[in-house]
Amino acid sequence: MTKRPLTLDRLAINQRTFGPDVDLPTAVEAAARAGFAGIAPWREHVTSVGRDAAARMIRDAGLKVSGLCRSGFFGPGSRPEDGQGALTEMLEAIEDAAVLGAAAVIVVGGGGGANIDAARARLCAGLAAVIPAAAAAGVRLALEPLHPMTAADRGCISTIDYARDLAVLLDPDNTVIGLALDAYHVWWEPYLAASVGRAGKRIDAVHICDWRVPTRDLLLDRGLPGDGVAQPRRLRCLAEAAGYRGLIEVEVFQPELWALADPLRIAEAARDAALAHG
Amino acid sequence: MTKRPLTLDRLAINQRTFGPDVDLPTAVEAAARAGFAGIAPWREHVTSVGRDAAARMIRDAGLKVSGLCRSGFFGPGSRPEDGQGALTEMLEAIEDAAVLGAAAVIVVGGGGGANIDAARARLCAGLAAVIPAAAAAGVRLALEPLHPMTAADRGCISTIDYARDLAVLLDPDNTVIGLALDAYHVWWEPYLAASVGRAGKRIDAVHICDWRVPTRDLLLDRGLPGDGVAQPRRLRCLAEAAGYRGLIEVEVFQPELWALADPLRIAEAARDAALAHG
Repeated sequence: MTKRPLTLDRLAINQRTFGPDVDLPTAVEAAARAGFAGIAPWREHVTSVGRDAAARMIRDAGLKVSGLCRSGFFGPGSRPEDGQGALTEMLEAIEDAAVLGAAAVIVVGGGGGANIDAARARLCAGLAAVIPAAAAAGVRLALEPLHPMTAADRGCISTIDYARDLAVLLDPDNTVIGLALDAYHVWWEPYLAASVGRAGKRIDAVHICDWRVPTRDLLLDRGLPGDGVAQPRRLRCLAEAAGYRGLIEVEVFQPELWALADPLRIAEAARDAALAHG
Repeated sequence: MTKRPLTLDRLAINQRTFGPDVDLPTAVEAAARAGFAGIAPWREHVTSVGRDAAARMIRDAGLKVSGLCRSGFFGPGSRPEDGQGALTEMLEAIEDAAVLGAAAVIVVGGGGGANIDAARARLCAGLAAVIPAAAAAGVRLALEPLHPMTAADRGCISTIDYARDLAVLLDPDNTVIGLALDAYHVWWEPYLAASVGRAGKRIDAVHICDWRVPTRDLLLDRGLPGDGVAQPRRLRCLAEAAGYRGLIEVEVFQPELWALADPLRIAEAARDAALAHG
């Protein structure tokens, strides 16, 4: 497998890496000052400043949008609570992504609740319903397999193969539906290399981060690249071997990182870890 | 799918359901008094009383052995620390299982450590090395897919399909290597029904328990059947549809259950939950 070096001109940062409460202007400024090429904003922060202002702010800072987080909560126990709400929310996300020029809307699928088979069927139907709007807007929807430990309450797209099967079945020509691959969520897969290879040209996003041992929290113990055993560089190189040429996004949720408080210091820590281990 | 009722004459209890420190005589007595048909002892407790005495005690109580927990820690970061130690440990487990008449030795594979691909290759080689001894002893080795959140530090057999592939590749005639299916570990699999069906006659053990929402601890927040969203009855019925006719084992690790303190009360609580929801 050929390994291209990861350089700063290919690196993006997820807004949440700065912490849940850091607003978009602050995150954009810190990302740009640290030299990142892109950012992945979260929808609530885009809504706070307005989608046109958000798009202008990001563009003026010289950043691309590696993805828009996040949409597609079709399961019960997720928000919006019902299917109609989830569809409305996805249509709004598609409009946001079009204005932002995002590489994709990140779709996590929602939790399985009490009946995961039913939740997955709802997800499938929901995606089918929004494909025309996404196609009309020229926006891709990247299904993100989330770690199986989140299957009950956040994301029921649990493996790369399942995400790809959904994409192929719903969108055989690969016009709209792709995949977002995140090292934290998929590193454990026994057939990782084969599955990433099959995902191929559908890969719309690659997220790097790490799995810490021991993991002390199911949500907020996600390490910087190099802090754990997820081998984020392996995932990046597999995705590139499969044809991926987009941005590589560092996405870390970690109170210890957020405790640095200064957004520029956080951006620099994430950047340095990503370049060294991603 | 035909659903046979789950009756007490088919129900076993895992020793650890009583808590980590309850000795084998106490667990056997409580299991028998609560009407269970079998028990799954843990190796350290078998060693404490001696394997012949353990076998006699279980037999005299009228119990079968639904499985022997547990063996096959080939990964780094697991015990025994090195491969030779893991092989020695497995050979001892095989002797224990033969004397106990256990349905299988439960094999969890050990954690992946810093390089999960290498750990899985070690597991494969280790299993190959012990197959002759298991065959000579007439003991089956049941590979147990553990939840992917344990892949780094406890079990790198992360899916049913991967376990089955290992079994088929190492033991094409199904003389020794089978699978142990545990609702807590596999409930999230997107293709659960197909994977259980393919496992078919290799299924040596079925464990029922539940996935609580939210999960507050990665090891000790495993619910009684009915306490969560894992649908243990679904797994049991899928296994039976695939041909499984062995015992159904209730296996719960939960300090709230252990707080009942009285082993008979714990056994009765596990029994009642298993019959109602398993």
